Amino acid sequence: MKKFVNSPDTILRDALTGVAAAHPELSVDVERRFVTRADAPRPGKVGLVSGGGSGHEPLHAGFVGPGMLDAACPGEIFTSPVPDQMLGAASAVDSGFGVLFIVKNYTGDVMNFEMAAELAADDGLETASVLVNDDVAVQDSTFTAGRRGTGATLFVEKIAGALADQGADLAAVADIGRRVNASSRSFAIALTACTTPATGKPGFDLPSDEIEVGVGIHGEPGRSREKMRPASDLAAELVETVLDDLPPSSDSPAIVMLNGMGGTPLIELYVLYGEVSTRLEERGVRIARSLVGNYVTSLDMAGASLTVCHADDRMIELWDAPVRTPALRWGV
Amino acid sequence: MKKFVNSPDTILRDALTGVAAAHPELSVDVERRFVTRADAPRPGKVGLVSGGGSGHEPLHAGFVGPGMLDAACPGEIFTSPVPDQMLGAASAVDSGFGVLFIVKNYTGDVMNFEMAAELAADDGLETASVLVNDDVAVQDSTFTAGRRGTGATLFVEKIAGALADQGADLAAVADIGRRVNASSRSFAIALTACTTPATGKPGFDLPSDEIEVGVGIHGEPGRSREKMRPASDLAAELVETVLDDLPPSSDSPAIVMLNGMGGTPLIELYVLYGEVSTRLEERGVRIARSLVGNYVTSLDMAGASLTVCHADDRMIELWDAPVRTPALRWGV
Repeated sequence: MKKFVNSPDTILRDALTGVAAAHPELSVDVERRFVTRADAPRPGKVGLVSGGGSGHEPLHAGFVGPGMLDAACPGEIFTSPVPDQMLGAASAVDSGFGVLFIVKNYTGDVMNFEMAAELAADDGLETASVLVNDDVAVQDSTFTAGRRGTGATLFVEKIAGALADQGADLAAVADIGRRVNASSRSFAIALTACTTPATGKPGFDLPSDEIEVGVGIHGEPGRSREKMRPASDLAAELVETVLDDLPPSSDSPAIVMLNGMGGTPLIELYVLYGEVSTRLEERGVRIARSLVGNYVTSLDMAGASLTVCHADDRMIELWDAPVRTPALRWGV
Repeated sequence: MKKFVNSPDTILRDALTGVAAAHPELSVDVERRFVTRADAPRPGKVGLVSGGGSGHEPLHAGFVGPGMLDAACPGEIFTSPVPDQMLGAASAVDSGFGVLFIVKNYTGDVMNFEMAAELAADDGLETASVLVNDDVAVQDSTFTAGRRGTGATLFVEKIAGALADQGADLAAVADIGRRVNASSRSFAIALTACTTPATGKPGFDLPSDEIEVGVGIHGEPGRSREKMRPASDLAAELVETVLDDLPPSSDSPAIVMLNGMGGTPLIELYVLYGEVSTRLEERGVRIARSLVGNYVTSLDMAGASLTVCHADDRMIELWDAPVRTPALRWGV
């Protein structure tokens, strides 16, 4: 295994040191392991806190900033952060308006965020939670009861973040986050397995002519092992699976993300997006906004996921609102 | 080889189709193979045109937009675009104020851009060129006489683009582009070789415990084959090599890019940047601005390059100017 690390044991600390050096607009607590906006807490604003195992960068720390998250708590690679991190982050960004936890549906994350919410309540800090569970591939999987949370996390963080920026209260911010999640579906295909620094080996074996269809962002198994096929065929499978699970309503605008898993060149993502967008439109989806790139990754995995949010006009308005984070930035 | 392609023969066309679908703010001529701002030509503005082989995305099409390039001409993978593409792009963006070609120093690119300049002159279209040759690794290499052009291309495109946006004339825009190039140095390390769709095999053999130091963005050989080492050691080598070639002048501000080659997870880039930034500061570099991410890639190569521009205050001002492109966006 060749990776830019000093030691697998120090990767999170070392990466946070780098994030601090690269992004002076963020405040990085390397000891307590959370990242906040440098100007937190913002008076009169609900605080948005997310987090989860590392290895999915830029998720979540790359989405901290005005218009999106107030804080992110990264765990070790593919490992939930602990309640103390979440509580520390929540306390750092709470201005008395309460804190929203955005939680991807993995057993460890859910349990730890619940514990953090209890600890926060003991401190008189009000919290609410949005559980993200958009991955249609499987019910129950390694690490998960129910559906896994993947790409829609970005949509929830962006849209709820914009509403919080406008001064909405905790119930309203949580509500739109839940509605975005309920309107979103994802599905992923892996061409290769990822290699964690701790093990130094690919997480699963994938023959040179086979792909894992419905893979999770930690390399969890999907629906089937299939033969490699042209991009047009894979695009059709992505689109059909996502839309069959939640068909588009007539003429509602969609936000679409074609996401690379970390090891796929951008030129391939554009090839795939050309096919995906054509097929979405054939199925009656009106693509209002799109993102193509590496946003919710799985270390060095080659692969891609499609996330579609069947939005309403209000969600589009909030999507378009200014955002200034390391990985998503517009309007400012 | 598993890649998201329909066929190695159609990858450029298919990718351009995807770029068109993803970026309605760009105008993509799939037949003639160039990408322009949808609002080109801009009256009273020098047009900036760059281009080169594909496989380095987001370079160059990802840098087309207000504040940066007016057009990009992508060649086939690792292959220069042809003069007709460059002439087509130049004609599409010229408003009578002339066009600047930004050319990475590879023999094919240089020859074809020269030919395009002659064809443009025949059409009464004034052009100037900036040759980018920032890679300190080697003099002469596969595809190159002299130094290779790599990461500094982004700096030239951004800073010259900002000056053009302010209405400067062709000579002034070319001049600052040349000064940015002259003030910039790059050096790269590969952990793995990249695989082109056409060959389906890694471009070179690299044992599991060795790295290619001074590698080019097409996998051209570097200075030495060395043993893999911790990130702190590799950061020291990157910094020393770049600064030994062009030492910092006292207290001039630096723009620093730690660039991933396409297959390196972002968390590793942050680990490496933490080490790089510390060593730069130890050597007296005042880091004024920084970028960490995948900007000038080499398909799926795992690796990273460091580019340092010893800027002046005017360059920093132009760096900070608004830019709105698919891959670089701030201030708007």
